[in-house]
Amino acid sequence: MHKTKTIEPFFSPKSIAVIGASNTKGKVGYTIFANMKKAETKNVYPVNPKYGNVQGKKAYASVSAIRKKIDLAIIALPPQIVPDSLEECMKNSVKAVIIVSAGFSEVGEETLTKKISALIKKYPKTRVMGPNCVGVMNIRSKIDTTFFERSRMEIPKKGTLSFISQSGALGSMILDWVATQQFGVNKFASYGNAMDIDEADLLEYFGEDPKTKVITVYLEGARDGRKFFNIAKKVSKTTPIIVLKGGKSDETRKAASSHTGSLAGSSDVYNAVFRQSGIIQADDLLDLFNIAKLLEKEPLPKGNRVLVITNGGGFGIVAADQIISHGLKLAKLSKKSEDELKAALPRASIGNPIDLLGDADIESYKKAIGAAQKDKNVDIIMVLVLFNLPTIEAKKIMSLKKARASAAKPTVVCAIGSDYTKKYMKKIEKAGFTTFNYPSVAAKALKEMVSYAAYLKKTR
Amino acid sequence: MHKTKTIEPFFSPKSIAVIGASNTKGKVGYTIFANMKKAETKNVYPVNPKYGNVQGKKAYASVSAIRKKIDLAIIALPPQIVPDSLEECMKNSVKAVIIVSAGFSEVGEETLTKKISALIKKYPKTRVMGPNCVGVMNIRSKIDTTFFERSRMEIPKKGTLSFISQSGALGSMILDWVATQQFGVNKFASYGNAMDIDEADLLEYFGEDPKTKVITVYLEGARDGRKFFNIAKKVSKTTPIIVLKGGKSDETRKAASSHTGSLAGSSDVYNAVFRQSGIIQADDLLDLFNIAKLLEKEPLPKGNRVLVITNGGGFGIVAADQIISHGLKLAKLSKKSEDELKAALPRASIGNPIDLLGDADIESYKKAIGAAQKDKNVDIIMVLVLFNLPTIEAKKIMSLKKARASAAKPTVVCAIGSDYTKKYMKKIEKAGFTTFNYPSVAAKALKEMVSYAAYLKKTR
Repeated sequence: MHKTKTIEPFFSPKSIAVIGASNTKGKVGYTIFANMKKAETKNVYPVNPKYGNVQGKKAYASVSAIRKKIDLAIIALPPQIVPDSLEECMKNSVKAVIIVSAGFSEVGEETLTKKISALIKKYPKTRVMGPNCVGVMNIRSKIDTTFFERSRMEIPKKGTLSFISQSGALGSMILDWVATQQFGVNKFASYGNAMDIDEADLLEYFGEDPKTKVITVYLEGARDGRKFFNIAKKVSKTTPIIVLKGGKSDETRKAASSHTGSLAGSSDVYNAVFRQSGIIQADDLLDLFNIAKLLEKEPLPKGNRVLVITNGGGFGIVAADQIISHGLKLAKLSKKSEDELKAALPRASIGNPIDLLGDADIESYKKAIGAAQKDKNVDIIMVLVLFNLPTIEAKKIMSLKKARASAAKPTVVCAIGSDYTKKYMKKIEKAGFTTFNYPSVAAKALKEMVSYAAYLKKTR
Repeated sequence: MHKTKTIEPFFSPKSIAVIGASNTKGKVGYTIFANMKKAETKNVYPVNPKYGNVQGKKAYASVSAIRKKIDLAIIALPPQIVPDSLEECMKNSVKAVIIVSAGFSEVGEETLTKKISALIKKYPKTRVMGPNCVGVMNIRSKIDTTFFERSRMEIPKKGTLSFISQSGALGSMILDWVATQQFGVNKFASYGNAMDIDEADLLEYFGEDPKTKVITVYLEGARDGRKFFNIAKKVSKTTPIIVLKGGKSDETRKAASSHTGSLAGSSDVYNAVFRQSGIIQADDLLDLFNIAKLLEKEPLPKGNRVLVITNGGGFGIVAADQIISHGLKLAKLSKKSEDELKAALPRASIGNPIDLLGDADIESYKKAIGAAQKDKNVDIIMVLVLFNLPTIEAKKIMSLKKARASAAKPTVVCAIGSDYTKKYMKKIEKAGFTTFNYPSVAAKALKEMVSYAAYLKKTR
């Protein structure tokens, strides 16, 4: 059996046991079971010898007492009794076990850690995630083993982005934020102490997952650098991987090592590994998901020549400055499209930026975008719109879809403003464009996209 | 009379003539007059010989026909008749004239430009802004000469930020965006072709304006570099100036020169001028107002040592990485406050970051912030909050105000998330903290604040 197949039961289990499911609010075992109940996840069995029933559902004294095949067990118990519970799962051929309990190697507890380690060796057919983790989410199948407070955060939309986070809390914050964004999530995993399944295994799994188009990773330190490198190199050929590395300097590496107990190698080593394996490195949180959004929504560009189209001269100049300072090039229109556009838009200033001027309408944007899509001198199109100018007809925004439809070129739209602008940026998204607020953020994401495309070309 | 006094009538006129006020919707002269009518600005007189009344108010055939002292006249007429109208204003001792009409030097029209130039020399008592500009806004006195579409944008709150923009359209977009932010605006000016009043005059005026705490500038090219340098050097000693320079490379400078007709000097020259005159240079739009917000709300730091306080280990590490990569230092707590905090918060990890752990409550934040405020080894405090963790008591957030009250140190709070987090970030703002979404954005703004404080120290 292919190795990644053994990870599937974490994300698509047909039956689930929640070991330590509780009736006491505030307990992790309460929240996990309550979240599943609320999501109406099917075939979930609470396991707790203390209760006859848990949150109104019949409780079982043990996994074997369920007398059904269990795909996934979640262990939320005090650390001392975790090894016995894990062994019972293994003896009952549970395919996947998530140990959310903390109190193991991350706090220097050796005896219990060794016991778990021995069990993982003895029963290789049961795969283990954790301990000290929040587990997984699968937005499509509504599998959610995390114990995040649902009243305090939103669940992201369905999408094609999968996300691996070494930190459960940071992961939860990011998922909550992603819920407010243009793009959606496929699967999430936070793997904690990585005693069995580690970041590289998940990377490989997501790389083969047909619903995953882009992989993002928050990583403090890889468990096995060589394994991570080899798998990343393979996966990045078909699926872009964006990594935010926590602990980039000696000082923060020390903090990272006390946080997840992982050995965060030097930045130079990681930078080299990332570069050579085609991994895109994000500078920070803002960067991480803006790059991901762009890669999820837009085709890869053939080169680095960007055309700016604007209805505000100053806005165009600010954006062009950002394109240049991020190492991209300002495209030079072909003579043919220049002549065509001059004839079609006699008042506009046809250069780069193309300044359609303050009285531009949607029709003039359509003409300019259409010409740029055809022009071989243009690889990427950045459209800027001052929505507050009176000649932009709100009603016609959806008609831009046509200009976009033929698009084999990444086309992004930038605008900032209050509610009026926000409303029409949503329409622009519906018309199929990827939107950003700031040209600088778009330019940074485009730069990384161009580098990734160049890496693929070079290594093909 | 001090020179900046002659600029005051633009922002606080007791009487206003709108020359070219119109009954035809869509005309600039219509919008300007309609905006003033809607804002209930007092003593506004429409001037238009074609109409008996404009938008229901008695119209005058000329400025002299008003038979009242006019402080400010706004000329919105075809360019050919602007010089005559300007001379009539000057003959009638109008103190300030804004020429919004375009069609002068920016399109290569020399004859009319020369006529205006001669009038400015002949009547120095009348100050002129423009031509080719949107004029001014004074949020406090509700003076607004701009012709922005009010249905498409919001007016910023009252505040202490003043804003000079060489580009009217970019200015309008930014004002609209500022309206959605934590901070407010005092005055705005967009001065167009700068035939009389230029960016340096406005800088000087805002520098002496008691309601202006921070000045932001969008600048493509200074009319008189030496004058700008001298005034900036003087003003920056008391009021921070943040400039976003449009046209940073040879290519974009060309575009800038066709946009505002100004000669945008080389980046090296500008960078040197900015550095030597204490100007803070913003990289882009995102930067511009985040630096401004920080300088408006927080005291200047004594040094560059930042303490991070968090309830999420990974979030803390990401923030600490940003602090270091922006050239700031991670503060090392004094032995005394370390001991105190270890006693007060026995479970927390007392380093930098201080990790209060996932079960931290508001009380523990108060203790940590309080200790940091007292510790001489700490110059700046960056607080990170994962609001979705269950032990953060929403009700107690306002009590953080106390920890902040004694604050002589810049203290910022970072969080990202959906509605729940957004709601409580608003509370955090009310409790007196400056908020940012991303640690990277906060770190960049803090870096610029630290550099500005160091410049002041050096030149004092």
